[in-house]
Amino acid sequence: MLSKNISEKLVSSSWIRAMFEQGEKLRKIYGADKVFDFSLGNPDLEPPQGTKNALKKLVLDDDPGLHKYMNNAGFADVREKIAANIQRDTCITMTGKNIIMTCGAAGGLNVVLKTILNPGEEVIVFSPFFVEYVSYIDNHGGKTVISPCDITTFEPDLSDLEKRINASTKAIILNSPNNPTGVIYSEEKLNEIAQLLEAKEEEYKTNILVISDEPYTKLVYDGAKVPSVLKVFKNSVIVNSYSKSLALPGERIGYIAVNNSIDDADSLISGLIYSNRILGFVNAPGLFQKVIAESLDEIVDINVYKERRDILYNHLYKLGFTCVKPQGAFYLFPKALIDDDIEFVKHALKYNVLLVPGTGFGCPGYFRLSYSVNLATIVNSLPLFEAIAKDFK
Amino acid sequence: MLSKNISEKLVSSSWIRAMFEQGEKLRKIYGADKVFDFSLGNPDLEPPQGTKNALKKLVLDDDPGLHKYMNNAGFADVREKIAANIQRDTCITMTGKNIIMTCGAAGGLNVVLKTILNPGEEVIVFSPFFVEYVSYIDNHGGKTVISPCDITTFEPDLSDLEKRINASTKAIILNSPNNPTGVIYSEEKLNEIAQLLEAKEEEYKTNILVISDEPYTKLVYDGAKVPSVLKVFKNSVIVNSYSKSLALPGERIGYIAVNNSIDDADSLISGLIYSNRILGFVNAPGLFQKVIAESLDEIVDINVYKERRDILYNHLYKLGFTCVKPQGAFYLFPKALIDDDIEFVKHALKYNVLLVPGTGFGCPGYFRLSYSVNLATIVNSLPLFEAIAKDFK
Repeated sequence: MLSKNISEKLVSSSWIRAMFEQGEKLRKIYGADKVFDFSLGNPDLEPPQGTKNALKKLVLDDDPGLHKYMNNAGFADVREKIAANIQRDTCITMTGKNIIMTCGAAGGLNVVLKTILNPGEEVIVFSPFFVEYVSYIDNHGGKTVISPCDITTFEPDLSDLEKRINASTKAIILNSPNNPTGVIYSEEKLNEIAQLLEAKEEEYKTNILVISDEPYTKLVYDGAKVPSVLKVFKNSVIVNSYSKSLALPGERIGYIAVNNSIDDADSLISGLIYSNRILGFVNAPGLFQKVIAESLDEIVDINVYKERRDILYNHLYKLGFTCVKPQGAFYLFPKALIDDDIEFVKHALKYNVLLVPGTGFGCPGYFRLSYSVNLATIVNSLPLFEAIAKDFK
Repeated sequence: MLSKNISEKLVSSSWIRAMFEQGEKLRKIYGADKVFDFSLGNPDLEPPQGTKNALKKLVLDDDPGLHKYMNNAGFADVREKIAANIQRDTCITMTGKNIIMTCGAAGGLNVVLKTILNPGEEVIVFSPFFVEYVSYIDNHGGKTVISPCDITTFEPDLSDLEKRINASTKAIILNSPNNPTGVIYSEEKLNEIAQLLEAKEEEYKTNILVISDEPYTKLVYDGAKVPSVLKVFKNSVIVNSYSKSLALPGERIGYIAVNNSIDDADSLISGLIYSNRILGFVNAPGLFQKVIAESLDEIVDINVYKERRDILYNHLYKLGFTCVKPQGAFYLFPKALIDDDIEFVKHALKYNVLLVPGTGFGCPGYFRLSYSVNLATIVNSLPLFEAIAKDFK
């Protein structure tokens, strides 16, 4: 009954999911406290109290119509509030009309790609990258083109990028702070990319859309700032999600913000609203649209993540792992101690330590650790990493 | 920036949406109480008290992990409860494994079609039909094949259906109680379809999946029963939604139930879970999964809809309209008083009466009235329908 495409993909499927299922098995055998699962980016924090209070108030107030259909783009008041928030933070002019509420960032990315891609058009992603991008691009007939980052900084490599852009390039996906590296792309780097894109758009007489996937923008440490993509790129949209910043991943709530500086932005907005409808999202979940509108300045306690990052990073550093110290998100992406990252991850499994191989992010030779796990797991895992490091000395 | 496909579709877009926007305009000019908008299937009832209580309890109890990611198929306990409910009502063996929670029926239909369609494969729909089906099928590379219903009963026409089935037929979408006619397909008719499908599957050595889109199954009147599709068709899935039965359309919550009798049902289930993930739904909204699990036997007060149906149907009947009396859903689908349904609907607009032309459902010459509008609107519209009828005498 399965299509050929899905049938083939089920076999290769996701490394992250595979590790998650492996973890479930191990937990059944050894007990949850004996399994050290760093494989999944599932925020273990609870939503901020302000967000929980907003949810309670909305449910108790029980305004009529709260659960009804609204415009496919979302509730008008919610869109206005998000636009005002973006304008306050970036000084970019933004109104509710530019905002389309979506079922998380995954939904938003699919809506954008559905709206812009003609068959065979190319979308550039920088490796390492969130592997689902490839499926999202494929869903809508596009072709993924991978541009490897400079592995000393995990920032885009301009000279490689230049070679990948051609007349079929329709879009570029940026993800900063990055999953899996935690790196924040510098304003300087973004400006260089913008200059390159403008030159290439001129050369090929095309428009290249910068799609900025930003679920981790608020999860930053050490006072780091994430430069505004809307300021740097004329042709840009933000795709955002409250899964990480408000710890609401199961509720599927996010938005697309369309840069006013796009020529005929209104057509693009109409197309996005239409795609949101026909892809079957119809609209972002209503109650949580209202919840996030009441908690735009809320955020989970990032000091909790920072503490975990510091413990893990410092420990791995001492053990001789090479790793760019992440300024954002909740991942570490160290170099494996042998070339074969899959072999390395399999070895860690012997200690009930679950990691994801870099291969799963288009970047062999590395592995990803998610530190959205509780402190006890991290502390108890430290001797295990020590043992693993010893095995490869 | 738009793809060619989306750009073209934006022009033709949906009649239902077009009327909705027309309504917004008229409401601004004349005031809401002077506009009689029968165009949208947006339940105007509030969710049942039991459902509201379940929502309140869940939010106040505030169990940790309520808003986190879960398996892409949904919360295990929710899936088990739905399976048990189906098994109780149909005596078909069903476990939680067979249930995939979805973002409403629109999400569920896209997930099913993504999972099964190879490029160019055909999906049969019976006209009149919910027009979004065409977009959903097109999203995943399929081709819509329309089989017109018998217009005296608005049930499928077996002799026409037989001609439409060929080696490329991958699926058939059933929608009973039907949008827009409100007709419930009889068990006899379903059995005839099943026999035909089995013969054709044998002839072409194919499997044809029956996709039963069932958002209106619980909205039935006069003691009508909706036959179980799972009992009749070996190769079948149910796609359901709580948008109408629990008046939760904005919350996007529904499910797919896979018939155990499908050969290798497990592969299909894995494919559906995978598609739910890669299409960007990821999972159905978490909180409302839990809410509906606590209100599986709740339903909006259908007597409210029945009263409206009776008033409108009886009035139109007296005025000389031809209309199959609907046994379910909340629509009437009468014959227009002139051949040109678009002209007819435009004429009604002069009275601030908003209808949707049958053309919008692949069935010219008719129009759809949604009676999910308040009683006052219905009562006040009666003289207007009288005036409209007079104009065409």
